[in-house]
Amino acid sequence: MIYLDNAATTKPNLAALEKAKTYLTEQYFNPSALYKEGYTISGELKKARSVLLSKIADETAFELVFTSCGTESDNQATFGFARRGNAVTTAGEHSAIAAAFAELKNKGIAEPRFAPLEQDGRVNVEKLLALVDEKTSFVSVMHVNNELGSINDINAIAKLVKQKNPRVIFHSDGVQAYGKLPFRLAKEVDLYSISAHKLGGLKGVGGLIKRKSLTLAPYIIGGGQEAGRRSGTENVFGIQQFAFAAEEKFSTLKADFERIKTLRETLWNGLDQTIFQRLSPMDGSPYILNISAVGLRGEVLLHLANDKGLLIGTGSACSSNAKTRYSKVVLACGYNEQVADGVLRISFSSATTEAEIAEAIGILNEIGRDLRKRMQ
Amino acid sequence: MIYLDNAATTKPNLAALEKAKTYLTEQYFNPSALYKEGYTISGELKKARSVLLSKIADETAFELVFTSCGTESDNQATFGFARRGNAVTTAGEHSAIAAAFAELKNKGIAEPRFAPLEQDGRVNVEKLLALVDEKTSFVSVMHVNNELGSINDINAIAKLVKQKNPRVIFHSDGVQAYGKLPFRLAKEVDLYSISAHKLGGLKGVGGLIKRKSLTLAPYIIGGGQEAGRRSGTENVFGIQQFAFAAEEKFSTLKADFERIKTLRETLWNGLDQTIFQRLSPMDGSPYILNISAVGLRGEVLLHLANDKGLLIGTGSACSSNAKTRYSKVVLACGYNEQVADGVLRISFSSATTEAEIAEAIGILNEIGRDLRKRMQ
Repeated sequence: MIYLDNAATTKPNLAALEKAKTYLTEQYFNPSALYKEGYTISGELKKARSVLLSKIADETAFELVFTSCGTESDNQATFGFARRGNAVTTAGEHSAIAAAFAELKNKGIAEPRFAPLEQDGRVNVEKLLALVDEKTSFVSVMHVNNELGSINDINAIAKLVKQKNPRVIFHSDGVQAYGKLPFRLAKEVDLYSISAHKLGGLKGVGGLIKRKSLTLAPYIIGGGQEAGRRSGTENVFGIQQFAFAAEEKFSTLKADFERIKTLRETLWNGLDQTIFQRLSPMDGSPYILNISAVGLRGEVLLHLANDKGLLIGTGSACSSNAKTRYSKVVLACGYNEQVADGVLRISFSSATTEAEIAEAIGILNEIGRDLRKRMQ
Repeated sequence: MIYLDNAATTKPNLAALEKAKTYLTEQYFNPSALYKEGYTISGELKKARSVLLSKIADETAFELVFTSCGTESDNQATFGFARRGNAVTTAGEHSAIAAAFAELKNKGIAEPRFAPLEQDGRVNVEKLLALVDEKTSFVSVMHVNNELGSINDINAIAKLVKQKNPRVIFHSDGVQAYGKLPFRLAKEVDLYSISAHKLGGLKGVGGLIKRKSLTLAPYIIGGGQEAGRRSGTENVFGIQQFAFAAEEKFSTLKADFERIKTLRETLWNGLDQTIFQRLSPMDGSPYILNISAVGLRGEVLLHLANDKGLLIGTGSACSSNAKTRYSKVVLACGYNEQVADGVLRISFSSATTEAEIAEAIGILNEIGRDLRKRMQ
């Protein structure tokens, strides 16, 4: 089996699992418990928090709140800061932001505004800025697009947004960027969502990084865990495993970045370009290659690849629950429905090998050619 | 070490961990993925759902939505159904409900009404019913009180509430009841919250059981997982481990119930009753014994016990983050501040042994007598 759907989820880091195991078997105490063993766990959470935060942010200026997933982080940011007036985002967001913005309208909380995309999947910054005015409370721009891998320069965009309206709270969904791109948060970014299971962590663990001076309203309320910002007993094992996995990830981030970029280009160069069109930009995240077998159905190709042991995606795994046939993001890039229908998302991890890429090329070309023949 | 703080969290079931391990190492796919491996995971989630639900409810009438914790389940129920008018709960609720009801007032969503408790920790049903009127949208009554172990007959209460106003949506927080009490949901109960880590499952996994015919609004929105009722990639490993742990738990539920009841009474009978007063009722959950060392500070005793290797709680672990010194629940039972200040919560699991109880008796009597001497 060749697993090239790492943007949907990655295989958990086994060494990190082993290191975190004690939080299941011995150190299983409630971090809110008042005895020494509880305080110890609480201290361990603090360490994990510091490890995860320090990799991309200045710990004197930012802090990290643990959540149950990237979606919860995105929801908490949006519902915590979008206020009467308007809120601005892009046409390329993950459904966690797109649905939250739709809800702003449904509930009459704020007018949602969507900035268009460039053909390469990045937001059109000029048009985004044109949507920001004195009534804008919240702006959310994803860091790496989860379908195309396009990278928005969120530090620069945040700066420009704040020049236009310094009261705006700026958020970015960093789920596909954290642990993959060399990057540090600028002080103009107020909030940043991360998720564990995209980089060798577990499903059920996420985080919301926030500027320290910002008051974050809790979205899940109760016992006051996470300094009152996220109630519910902390997922100690998942959090620790996330920190161990991230530690490893960041230690090889730059080398992986270059290596995966080479693998992505090897894959693209090996593909039959009379069948496949490339949608992912050259300067996007190396971890995602989005292609379209124009005139063929991506979903059919996905199943044919599956039969040959190659696991890939079409759009976002999360949008497979939606009833829409075409990727909204691909259409927002200006492609027609025929291109959108043929889309395949191939996504890598640091564990991806050259041999797997070579095999994937063979399979994709074979099924693409076969299906085209059958369609003629 | 003797761990008698199982109402705060329990040690994960190791056999269930071992059985679920494959969902970390081999079966790590995203359940929303369109290839066979994704569908397989999705099918496994369905099986886990059925195992967990069938233990306490008729699967033709109820269904289960996975969440990240009991607190999220309680929040989703409250914010999903409390509407203009009023919402009724009890003075004995966990902070997940108490805080959500406070928020109903803060946000001007509904008027929260709180029914008083009997001295044994159960809600005063007559007074609860008196608060329900034609403007009541939502009623929440916890099943087992997390501090005293008092059991509310929620099936009967739901029936009475619906006789008074059939349009009310009735919810119960079953976090301390599920897997511990012999019980099945009556059709008058619309919603029921459960949590994994109170019965050998993991932190970070919860569920909200709902009547099938009820439309449940999502609280976390995005990719539309859980049939649109809870977005975010499902915590597959945690869910499977929960199902395996629950399977074991329910297989010995009745025998454990009787055995733990005997242990609880052994403990109580062994305690120096010139020092300790019992707050937990005889007919409460056998898994919780709440006592007060009247005139002494519970927190000091907790630390003295800790030094001798006995781990117990004062109030709810979740409320340790709060700034209030006294348990609101104990005060709501009509006890004075001196009683509330001396409270200790001793809570058992099916793994608790007679030898541990004997040792706990010795430690509690010793530290109680010592502290009293020092206070004179």
